[in-house]
Parts: sequence; structure tokens; C-alpha cells
Amino acid sequence: MNKIVKPSTLPGFMELLPPDQLVFNQMKDIIRKNYEKKGFLAIDTPVLEKEEILLAKGGGETEKQIYAFKKGNTDIAMRFDLTVPLARYVAEHYSDLTFPFRRYHIGKVYRGERAQKGRFREFYQCDIDIIGNGKLSIVNDGEIPSIIESTFVDLGFDAFTIHINNRKILNGFYRSLGISDSTDVLRTVDKLDKIGLEKVEEELLKLGLDEEKVEKIADFIAIDGTTEEIFDKLEALSVDDDTYREGVSELKEVFDVALALGVKPEHLIPDMRIARGLDYYTGTVYETILDDYPEIGSVCSGGRYDDLASHYIKQKLPGVGISIGLSRLYYQLNEAGLLNNYSHRGTDCLIIPFEDTKKEGLKLLKTLRDADIPCLLYGEDNKIGKKFKYADQIGVPYAIVLGRSEVEKGTFNLRDMKTGDEREMTLDEVISVLKGVSKK
Amino acid sequence: MNKIVKPSTLPGFMELLPPDQLVFNQMKDIIRKNYEKKGFLAIDTPVLEKEEILLAKGGGETEKQIYAFKKGNTDIAMRFDLTVPLARYVAEHYSDLTFPFRRYHIGKVYRGERAQKGRFREFYQCDIDIIGNGKLSIVNDGEIPSIIESTFVDLGFDAFTIHINNRKILNGFYRSLGISDSTDVLRTVDKLDKIGLEKVEEELLKLGLDEEKVEKIADFIAIDGTTEEIFDKLEALSVDDDTYREGVSELKEVFDVALALGVKPEHLIPDMRIARGLDYYTGTVYETILDDYPEIGSVCSGGRYDDLASHYIKQKLPGVGISIGLSRLYYQLNEAGLLNNYSHRGTDCLIIPFEDTKKEGLKLLKTLRDADIPCLLYGEDNKIGKKFKYADQIGVPYAIVLGRSEVEKGTFNLRDMKTGDEREMTLDEVISVLKGVSKK
Repeated sequence: MNKIVKPSTLPGFMELLPPDQLVFNQMKDIIRKNYEKKGFLAIDTPVLEKEEILLAKGGGETEKQIYAFKKGNTDIAMRFDLTVPLARYVAEHYSDLTFPFRRYHIGKVYRGERAQKGRFREFYQCDIDIIGNGKLSIVNDGEIPSIIESTFVDLGFDAFTIHINNRKILNGFYRSLGISDSTDVLRTVDKLDKIGLEKVEEELLKLGLDEEKVEKIADFIAIDGTTEEIFDKLEALSVDDDTYREGVSELKEVFDVALALGVKPEHLIPDMRIARGLDYYTGTVYETILDDYPEIGSVCSGGRYDDLASHYIKQKLPGVGISIGLSRLYYQLNEAGLLNNYSHRGTDCLIIPFEDTKKEGLKLLKTLRDADIPCLLYGEDNKIGKKFKYADQIGVPYAIVLGRSEVEKGTFNLRDMKTGDEREMTLDEVISVLKGVSKK
Repeated sequence: MNKIVKPSTLPGFMELLPPDQLVFNQMKDIIRKNYEKKGFLAIDTPVLEKEEILLAKGGGETEKQIYAFKKGNTDIAMRFDLTVPLARYVAEHYSDLTFPFRRYHIGKVYRGERAQKGRFREFYQCDIDIIGNGKLSIVNDGEIPSIIESTFVDLGFDAFTIHINNRKILNGFYRSLGISDSTDVLRTVDKLDKIGLEKVEEELLKLGLDEEKVEKIADFIAIDGTTEEIFDKLEALSVDDDTYREGVSELKEVFDVALALGVKPEHLIPDMRIARGLDYYTGTVYETILDDYPEIGSVCSGGRYDDLASHYIKQKLPGVGISIGLSRLYYQLNEAGLLNNYSHRGTDCLIIPFEDTKKEGLKLLKTLRDADIPCLLYGEDNKIGKKFKYADQIGVPYAIVLGRSEVEKGTFNLRDMKTGDEREMTLDEVISVLKGVSKK
């Protein structure tokens, strides 16, 4: 006998049982379908890249988390996001691509971070980006919310808000206060939800800002109201900075385009508190919050950047994109019990023949499958109880027990597995009932 | 300015441009849909596993090709197939699964083999397996050809043959010749297509077999004719071995079930020359050959095994399964020019507004998308020639140039991008034409 190795996965790696995997895949399909319908093209880059490609930008956290190894003389690493591979892809295939290049990519990425609840070392990202060649119209930034909206509506949500800001507003505003490098301020403001306004003000004072400036910042990040009111307040601030004005104008156009594309006004709000990654985005930024579950954090984020692939190509490639962290999203929605509307089964009918009706069972299987009904035949020799138990366990709504007498009569006993009721039917009736089974 | 790192992928890793990726994904979807319709449930195991799990079976070639590395104190490896992870999965989740467990898995696997044309170090496998708990009916073996058939028909092929054999026939036959360990003989016979019968006979003689036995083997592997004739010849050999008789009987039942499920007789043939992996399969074995492209080799193979997960669990788990090596299949079909029937585009209509009709362009975009027509708006400020060039490059069949005058009239100029013809239409006419665009 073999030595037994205890079967287990590496810690921090998500693995689902089939009913949950079905739900996960439905979510993945919904996202994919939305991306495709909006004219994004799939790419599928290798999980492994040259380490020098992935680390071209450098950066401490990334380098610590990356799975890297040597094979022969080659330094190889696993991708830690889909953005760096996109940059490499666009640079490598620059002359073969049509710009604006609209690509989606749904794939696994790898980060060897400290394992914790809801954080995975292997997880799916679902990204779209629109990459311009040299320039890219703000219209693209305005289209993004319509994609977020249709995706989350299809995922089964209606109460969500896409928070939108523009980094130019932030840069201009803080520059007008004499703060040329706003990194520390942004980082502090970013803690608002966690530590509250009072603590944020304290920390801002500690950064060496005077009370007047801190008050102005507090007023700025507190700007709220309807979209119209917020834009009025942004005007009323009369910030004398071209970048600020450009940012407000861009943000307005993003709202105009999104609303023209039919995004519900209640799904959109300008929000001066969001900034996203501090050294990456340069214009529009997005965060999406489920209104009833703000504690989950942003379920879809992204923004506009000036130059995608400066580490790999001289051409300037501005872009705008968003990402859904599907593994984390699935995990959190599942924990919150929000995935009960998804189907947990793949089959609608189980055919249960006896030893002397196997042939007729196969014939029925063929007929139902030809009619596009997902069904199975239980071909094992077992007691009838065990056969029904199988039907229960795989969760089929219907079973057909194929006895000799029905075969001779040419009828079928369709059993409703939930109620246990059996009805004798013709083949056409069976097909009609099974065709009507919703996948809910 | 940044230092430029030359953008490139690792050698031996497939990466496709968007039009080819579209084709690849259509093939993947067809396979997936076929697997799902036949009641197989998706699983999605981690790409990374504990090295001790993947190497539990041992084996020289595997160990050399595997991508393995240390992270912290953990020995990690990338999966080199989907079968070992399935074995680990079934063993680990044994008590949560329903048997027979029908799972499909479409995912990337990794082998650091010598790079050569058409061989990839990262490639997709598309696997189905049916796993029994202790026992598994031969009916399952008989269902497999119907899945292969529908999949390859949907992939666009009609001329293919599923070659089926049973290892028990081989074991029994060779044992009846006094050859108890048939490994070397099978390995020699396996070279038949490459080196021809004469050379095979020479090599068999070198193995120490006498001329009479070599002649009997030559006769055996030469068995051909119709399915019925082949079964007659297998009977006529009167091999006095129980295993042989069991193998012939199983093979017959596989044909009976497959034919009952509607598999075309011309898609099936018993073939005494195929054995598949020498130490793994124990019953039915399958190979699928495209009749017009035999040089591609088997495009879908698999078989029956006695015990899936003996390295991880004491329970005996017999199974039967097949695998399609999609990356290799795609590559070879593409090289042979056989993928021209697939669609190379994702969008049916490009809306081209002018600066003063952007708003109406967005409205049209919303209307067409609401009607489920995949379409795009060209939002960049460029000369009209550049806009048409974009339409050409992304390969949309139709474009709508939205001039001020049409907007005022409330009509739309639909341009057939192939012929250059433009027709003025109402919105309903536009929708009706675009709805009729086949994805071919």
C-alpha cells in the first residue's frame, strides 16, 4: 500500500466545493458578459513573467509579496496584478494593437501576503482598461460608471454608489493651500472612515499644517449634498488653480457622460475624500460601495493614469480602468449571506433506470439532452434508496424512475424531488415541464 | 525618464493577440458548455500546491519538469496537470462530495519542458472525470464518447474517429502469450505509427520474444474492419484468459452505450494498438483522431483507472476521464488554417460622433446597448479618416457617422464597412439590421 500524504491545500488559498463554485462561476460569467458587451477584448497573459518585467517599477511591498524563483538561469515571478502584465502586453504588441485599446482580463494573481480572513494569496481580478495612444478622451472615463452599474445590477445589487473624484481637484486644492506634495495629507485623509474627523485633524496638525489650513481641509473633505450641490460647493471654493479647475471640469464631464448613458443619478456621487493609490492615478478615480454593506469597502475601484507602460516603451499611453477583486468579493458576499439568489446546481433531472431498463434510460438521456435539458443518468447498481439519495445530494429538482411497466406503457414517472410527488406523463409532457425549470 | 526594460514573455509561453484570443475563448466556451450540459460540475483548484502533494506519486520526468520553489519554509510547486489536484481535491473533500462525482476542470498547467514548436510551458487542459466511491459502472465509460462527439462537432469537426480499447484485453492477450509484464511490448507497439510494422517486429524479437509470438502480436495489432468485424476477430482469437474476456465484454458495452446515446457509428472504432499511459489506465482507453489531420495526433484522450487518490486516502476511487489539451489543439488547428469559421471580432457597430453630436452619440450608444447590440462609441477627437481606420482595424461590420444634419432629421447613416455603402435609416431599422448581424 502507498504511503498516504495528508491531502490539503496551501494556507491562504481559496478552494470551493462544487455548489459554491457554481455560484462563483456565475458571478465571473456575469462580469465577463458585461465587459464583452461593452466592447472589451479578452487577453490572457501568462501567469509567469520574467522577474525583471514585474519588478521594473520596483516598490517595497510588491517585492516582498511576490512569488519569485529561479528555473535554470531564468529569474521568474508570478504576476501579482493584471496591470503590469497589461503594460508589458501593450508595449510588446504596440504595433499590432488598435488604440484606444479596450481590453478585459479575468485571471488569477498571486501575493504571498500574511494569510488572514478574507485575504487570499491566489485570487481573481476582473479588470478592464481603455488605453489611448498619446491621448485618451475623457468620454472614456464617463463610460466606466455605466459598466460598473450594469455589472453590479446583473450581479444582483441595486443599492450601491459609485464614488467619483478627480486627482487634479485634490492636487490643485492642496497646492492652493501651499502644499506641493500632498502625499502625507492624502494618506491621512484616507483614514477618515477608520479614525474619524477629529483624529484626522489632529494628525494633519502633526504634519505641520496650521489650524486655518486644517480647517479648510476639513471643510473640503466634508463637502456633501446632491451631485449638483457638491459641484456648486466646489465652484464656491473659488480655488485659484488651473489644475483644480481642470479637475472639476473633467469630473463634471464624467457625470454628464455617465448620466447620458443612462446611469441612475442615485448610483453616482462626487466624493472629495477618495484618492486611490497615491502614486498611480492622475485624473478620475472610482470607488464602489454597496450601500447596505459599507464595511465590505470598495467592491470595484480604479481610475485614470497618465502613462501605462513607461517602463517598457517610450510612447505615452494614458488609460482608464477598473478592477473587481472577485475572490474577495465572493468571500465577503457569501459570508454576509448575500448569494442565496444564485443557483447551486447544474442539472435539472436525474434518470434512474433499473438493470432491465438501462437501454431505455440511455435513450431517454439522449432525448432530453437533444432537447437541451441538463440531465444525468444514474448508472450504478444500487438500491433505489441510494439512488434517491444521490438525487437529493446533487440537488436535482426532478427525477425519473424508469420501471419496466412504464417502459411498456411508454410513459414516464416524473418525481418532484422537493415534494416527493410523482406524476405519470408522456415524453412531451416531461420535456415541457423540464424546459420550464428555472435555474433559480 | 525611466529605464526601459524590453517587454517580452518567457520563452515557451503562449500569448495571443485579441482576434486570436477571441477564437481561443470561443473554443474554450464550447468545451465548457459541452461539459456542463452533460452534468459535470466545475472545480477550480489552486495553481500552487504543496510540493509533497504533487510529487506523492514520484516519477522522474514529472520531477524534472515541475516548477517548484521555496517560499519561507514551504516547498511549493505549480500543478503540472489537473489529475493530481483532482485526486487531492477528492481525497480532501471526500465526505462533502456526492459519488459518482462528475467534475470538469478547465485550467492552466505548467511544465518546464524543453521549448519546441507547438509545445508550451503553460497550457490549458480541459478535463472531465467521473469518480466512483469503491466502484463505478461501465455505463460511465460508454457515456464518454458521446461527450467527445458533441464537443468536437460543436468545435466544427465532423470527420473524426474515437479509437477505443480496453487495457484488460491487452493484459489478457499478452498474458496468454506468456508475457506477464507487457510494459516493454506495449511501448514497442506504441511506436507502430512512427516506425512501421517491420521495425516493430524487429524490436519485439530483440525483446526476446520468439517468432511465433511476434507473429501473433503482429496479427493482433493489425486487427481491423468494421466495429462488428473487429469484435468477431477478437472472439475468433479464442484467447483463454478471463481478463481478456472481461475486457472484450466491457469494450462491447462501451460501444453499446455510446451507440444508444446516439454516437454516430463512423465516429467510433475499437483499436488494439492504443494503450495510453503505461502505468495509469486499467480499463477503457480513448484516443480521438481528426481523420483529415492524423499528424496532429490524438486531440482528446483518456481512460479508466482503478484508483484515483491512493496517495492521499485509503478509499478506493475508480474513475474514468478524458482531457483536451486546448493550447496545443488551438495552436495546431490554427497552424493548419482550420479556425477560419470562428469569429474574430467582439463588436458589431461603431458609433462615430462629431464634437457637436457627442451627446446624441452617447444616447445612441445607450439605446443600442439596451437592445443588446455589442457596440462602441469612438470618443477621440480625430480626423474622420482616422475614425474609419479604427473601425476597419477593430473589424466592425457597421459604423454610424453621426452628423449634425442627421441628428436634426432624426435619422442615422448606417455604413457597411465592407462595401462602404451608406444607407439612411430610422432607429428601428438600424436596430433591426444590427440585430440580424451574425457573429460569423
